[in-house]
Amino acid sequence: MREQGLGVQVNYKHIFTQAIDRLHSEGRYRVFIDILRNKGAFPNARCFHGHNGPKPITVWCSNDYLAMGQHPKVVAAMEEALHDVGAGSGGTRNIGGNTHYHVDLEAELADLHGKEGALLFTSGYVSNEATLSTLAKILPGCIIFSDELNHASMIAGIRNSGCEKRVFRHNDVDHLRELLAAEDPDAPKLIAFESVYSMDGDIAPIAEICDLADEYNALTYLDEVHAVGMYGARGGGISERDEVAHRLTIIEGTLGKAFGVMGGYIAADQMIVDVIRSYAPGFIFTTSLSPVLVAGVLASVRHLKQSSEERDGQQASAATLKRMMAEAGLPVMPSVTHIVPLMVGDPVKAKRISDILLAEYGAYVQPINYPTVPRGTERLRFTPGPAHNEEMMRELVDALVEIWDRLELEFKKAA
Amino acid sequence: MREQGLGVQVNYKHIFTQAIDRLHSEGRYRVFIDILRNKGAFPNARCFHGHNGPKPITVWCSNDYLAMGQHPKVVAAMEEALHDVGAGSGGTRNIGGNTHYHVDLEAELADLHGKEGALLFTSGYVSNEATLSTLAKILPGCIIFSDELNHASMIAGIRNSGCEKRVFRHNDVDHLRELLAAEDPDAPKLIAFESVYSMDGDIAPIAEICDLADEYNALTYLDEVHAVGMYGARGGGISERDEVAHRLTIIEGTLGKAFGVMGGYIAADQMIVDVIRSYAPGFIFTTSLSPVLVAGVLASVRHLKQSSEERDGQQASAATLKRMMAEAGLPVMPSVTHIVPLMVGDPVKAKRISDILLAEYGAYVQPINYPTVPRGTERLRFTPGPAHNEEMMRELVDALVEIWDRLELEFKKAA
Repeated sequence: MREQGLGVQVNYKHIFTQAIDRLHSEGRYRVFIDILRNKGAFPNARCFHGHNGPKPITVWCSNDYLAMGQHPKVVAAMEEALHDVGAGSGGTRNIGGNTHYHVDLEAELADLHGKEGALLFTSGYVSNEATLSTLAKILPGCIIFSDELNHASMIAGIRNSGCEKRVFRHNDVDHLRELLAAEDPDAPKLIAFESVYSMDGDIAPIAEICDLADEYNALTYLDEVHAVGMYGARGGGISERDEVAHRLTIIEGTLGKAFGVMGGYIAADQMIVDVIRSYAPGFIFTTSLSPVLVAGVLASVRHLKQSSEERDGQQASAATLKRMMAEAGLPVMPSVTHIVPLMVGDPVKAKRISDILLAEYGAYVQPINYPTVPRGTERLRFTPGPAHNEEMMRELVDALVEIWDRLELEFKKAA
Repeated sequence: MREQGLGVQVNYKHIFTQAIDRLHSEGRYRVFIDILRNKGAFPNARCFHGHNGPKPITVWCSNDYLAMGQHPKVVAAMEEALHDVGAGSGGTRNIGGNTHYHVDLEAELADLHGKEGALLFTSGYVSNEATLSTLAKILPGCIIFSDELNHASMIAGIRNSGCEKRVFRHNDVDHLRELLAAEDPDAPKLIAFESVYSMDGDIAPIAEICDLADEYNALTYLDEVHAVGMYGARGGGISERDEVAHRLTIIEGTLGKAFGVMGGYIAADQMIVDVIRSYAPGFIFTTSLSPVLVAGVLASVRHLKQSSEERDGQQASAATLKRMMAEAGLPVMPSVTHIVPLMVGDPVKAKRISDILLAEYGAYVQPINYPTVPRGTERLRFTPGPAHNEEMMRELVDALVEIWDRLELEFKKAA
């Protein structure tokens, strides 16, 4: 590596090797599974990894929760935009990259959440990072109250804001109250949390948190990335279902999961949208979303506003898979959402189960390891959707039971 | 705003209003120009802003530098992928979102820069932020040496790494040497800089910086976002043109400018790619690029590896426009690249010129204000490409001369 400026005094190569070795020794070195999904036949896909040519598989861990990524309306809208305006936006939102599609989608998303405005970002990660880091900088002395299980992108935004942070125990309103009460009443405050926590499948007590926000004059920031499109009569998320959207300062969502495409956004008062739009480097200094993607999302959001078929299908699939797993004695975790996590508790075993499923049964589910979940709670996380049928689930559960036997893993007493 | 949790003790609304008022008072509040480009006829586009229905315009400020966003090969590849696999990837690279397109494109980009590996990100911004912040965390005690005109995304990455930073004067190798010499020889060091600086159009002395990196055992990080696709026999950037790619530790590029689509990447030794892939939250915890975009970029990179027609056309257009502006006495800045900046030196005047051009002449060029450029150097930045013809340039220069007269701006003595 000397040619590339790596020398002898500091041994860069040694430091990098150690960093990678740590992952191997903990059994959490990640190998990317190389696949292509089959449009029109999802969850069917082709896997390239370690095979001579593609092998057919069934995908069980996609966040294209409602299979909107292959919906004819979405595909048609993207094709039309591609032929109308071309591949990319060609610039930042401020310099040449603000298309009419972006303007229309922001209006559609504002409407979805009953807010005055919305703002698009290149990803949900960036929307969280950019918004939280910028908000807290605009508010001098701001203290952020953050659920301990918040997503890495929220944690990054809070850390990058440089402001004070208080972490409350997961979904624990009493603990949040304690922390709020301990601070100066005159300090700006922001409570940041999620609606659906994606690795456990549980749901935040949004109304109670809003009560506390009112009592302690705090702003609220709700991440709905694992809920938009899937909950509420129009897909506005848990905040729509629970009729609390109007009580939240900012609702954040993704365009890359239930909406099936890519990108992220916030919805809020126009004034807050204007502040973020004007001050967040992660929004200002980046090429805007491709108009092809934006056109696809527009079709997806509009469809899911008036169709509940996909949501109902997903809930039915999730209920069936949970029931079948429980009946087979598999340690399915108590999720109240569409997410079906199966506890393993060890990174090496979780990877082994996943490997056997893919190699022998053509079932693709990724092991979830630290830092995505706490150590000792490694798991498999299934996301059945409206396109997963009972036959697929039966095959999957039979496979899991066989592997559980083979690896001598513990069964729970059947429910 | 009380309904949304905004109360009386801290007046959030007042703070947000003040933040926006500051921008208005400095003349740098941004209004997004709402456009749609016409595929197959770029730089022609339609503008929606303040009109009854779309009005035809010519775009002069796109970063789709080579008009690859409308190239038939790019459009065809995106259409094919859209129909083959659908709209989005459905997951992170590690969980369901690693498609065969991603694997192929990374191999193509590694080859473009003569590196062992490459890694895709959702944007160039994220690639800079994630890579720089992660690298410096992996290397304990690392000091980053950063050109004073580095892009906001590099600054964000360096700041978020929490490491020590030394800023050297723009392209000033003597100053960089001084700063390197002043530090502990045993401390890990990283020099971060760009090849083409996009607002001035000047170029870094890459070979001399690599010499210093060798001498002081520093890693090098080169941002080539305004050069990839456009310089070098295969579009490998200034580092290819100057035959120094092998001397750089990491080369970073974008897929959203000359390649015409969206996304960012790094190319480096496989070990470094592996470290970033395994440790960077901004890479790990985000939905991967849509396979539709990746397919388009693949076609674009492959085309520009073997075609110099677009590069030659761009250089010819830039030379012509610079010459015409100089002959007309317009204060064109001394760019040595495809970027044609016209100095105004005042944010309000820059916006006024831009407004007149759009409203009266149908020419769209965005004013560039602080913080994108230093205060007092506000400018208009033109990016003529292979599809801008001489007639368009003649109309543009005539319009500028008329506006310069009308606003009583200063002409330079014609060259």
